[in-house]
Amino acid sequence: MSKTSEPKMSGPQLEAFMAESFSQMNDMNLTIEEVRPRYLRARIVTSEKNLRPGGTISGPTMMAMADCVTWLAIIGTLGHGEQAVTTNLNMNFMKRPGPFDLIAEGRLLKLGRRLAVGDVMIYSDDGSDAADHPVAHATLTYAIPEEK
Amino acid sequence: MSKTSEPKMSGPQLEAFMAESFSQMNDMNLTIEEVRPRYLRARIVTSEKNLRPGGTISGPTMMAMADCVTWLAIIGTLGHGEQAVTTNLNMNFMKRPGPFDLIAEGRLLKLGRRLAVGDVMIYSDDGSDAADHPVAHATLTYAIPEEK
Amino acid sequence: MSKTSEPKMSGPQLEAFMAESFSQMNDMNLTIEEVRPRYLRARIVTSEKNLRPGGTISGPTMMAMADCVTWLAIIGTLGHGEQAVTTNLNMNFMKRPGPFDLIAEGRLLKLGRRLAVGDVMIYSDDGSDAADHPVAHATLTYAIPEEK
Amino acid sequence: MSKTSEPKMSGPQLEAFMAESFSQMNDMNLTIEEVRPRYLRARIVTSEKNLRPGGTISGPTMMAMADCVTWLAIIGTLGHGEQAVTTNLNMNFMKRPGPFDLIAEGRLLKLGRRLAVGDVMIYSDDGSDAADHPVAHATLTYAIPEEK
Repeated sequence: MSKTSEPKMSGPQLEAFMAESFSQMNDMNLTIEEVRPRYLRARIVTSEKNLRPGGTISGPTMMAMADCVTWLAIIGTLGHGEQAVTTNLNMNFMKRPGPFDLIAEGRLLKLGRRLAVGDVMIYSDDGSDAADHPVAHATLTYAIPEEK
Repeated sequence: MSKTSEPKMSGPQLEAFMAESFSQMNDMNLTIEEVRPRYLRARIVTSEKNLRPGGTISGPTMMAMADCVTWLAIIGTLGHGEQAVTTNLNMNFMKRPGPFDLIAEGRLLKLGRRLAVGDVMIYSDDGSDAADHPVAHATLTYAIPEEK
Repeated sequence: MSKTSEPKMSGPQLEAFMAESFSQMNDMNLTIEEVRPRYLRARIVTSEKNLRPGGTISGPTMMAMADCVTWLAIIGTLGHGEQAVTTNLNMNFMKRPGPFDLIAEGRLLKLGRRLAVGDVMIYSDDGSDAADHPVAHATLTYAIPEEK
Repeated sequence: MSKTSEPKMSGPQLEAFMAESFSQMNDMNLTIEEVRPRYLRARIVTSEKNLRPGGTISGPTMMAMADCVTWLAIIGTLGHGEQAVTTNLNMNFMKRPGPFDLIAEGRLLKLGRRLAVGDVMIYSDDGSDAADHPVAHATLTYAIPEEK
């Protein structure tokens, strides 16, 4: 567990890494707003293609965001870990987000040698005081393969 | 709960409905292989863009598939319900799927007036006896708005 | 994975094992009705002490039952595994069970060397056709320590 | 959502209420250490009966604690809500707690008219700096019946 106050990778480094290694996520328009050890905040600029019937942001958009943010928090903290794979995702959808950007705050509850556990709160950037209005919350676990 | 042996919508009807109303899912190349009341089996033809670092099918691909299959099972059974929204998703990833098609079998455990609960088993169509090798399992809940 | 048609331990053997090694569960009045490889069905005879405000069977009663049934299914299938520890539990409560016995059917979706995944459906034995009326559904994962 | 700085019920009031209305929980030796709007911290004094094979605190002990703490946080915040029923529980077990007291910190992420969502972090009071060593984390949802 890192006790230092600096993450091993910066936001721009993580964005570049993701763009290169995880092309599926390039469609997401995800930008990293802050990264600290065991913490990462990101935004996705949503568009028409993120909407589901009813005009709200789709569940799969938020699931992908939660997974991506936690995975990047692991990599940012450790400086490696891109082989970490999701073993469990649990997500509660609390409010239907309108057609606005989403902000996700992820933190790592545990970061062991083999197992990471994190949670992510997702907010809708709808002009109100977002911190009072989370739209979804996820808990995720990852298996971290041994480095060779 | 439908006790009839016929779903209200067929596979082709559901595919046409989804293509029209949920454009995000069009990228998924999802085809419906069987639909019965409270049951739906679908396939996604995977490609390069579904891969994550390590060369396996990404978690968000499987999450989107599980959500979509259960939502379509609700609509196929009821003949309506497109406003049903996911309230909880829990997913366990049991095995890393190689670069093959995925098959998902969804069934509804409960289909009440306001609440639906389903589960989905996802298999990798890797040429082995898929039924012995599930790669992921999800449980999902949906809130069904009252019809006006 | 056991492919044989016989579990390694019978219901009475499992009940005796549990009575001896897991005293907390003795309060549960759990009896095993059927055990097969990767499958176990059990009943708990409920009483006043299982009720919560509102007169329905409490959540913790059902959580303990789901955990116990899956753990016993692992041990019954393998003939060992009592050191298996729960790593994740997800449970959906679908209907409030009245003051009747509960029946739980557990099956193992995956039983690997180090990881087991199971699900459990819980029914209320209220005199109706129980199989149509599940009250709760759980998915559980276990870490199986290496044998020495 | 309460914005006041005082909960509607104090710790001793909640303990008395629970002792009277939810007898199953009396075995738990749960004491409330702090209650604020949307927050509650409790301790259980564990004993032999909370142990599982391997000598660690059992999963059902932690599940019951998480459920109870969140339910009490709802009642403490609202001054009513004892009919709130758990609709989903997700729990990750991160570390095997030794035979020490458990401390649970519960907070409500959402407290709407009909739905509450909370999470609970459980620590083992093993003499180390507990805040660094969570043993389990749960997310829970509750349906709050309409008052008549």
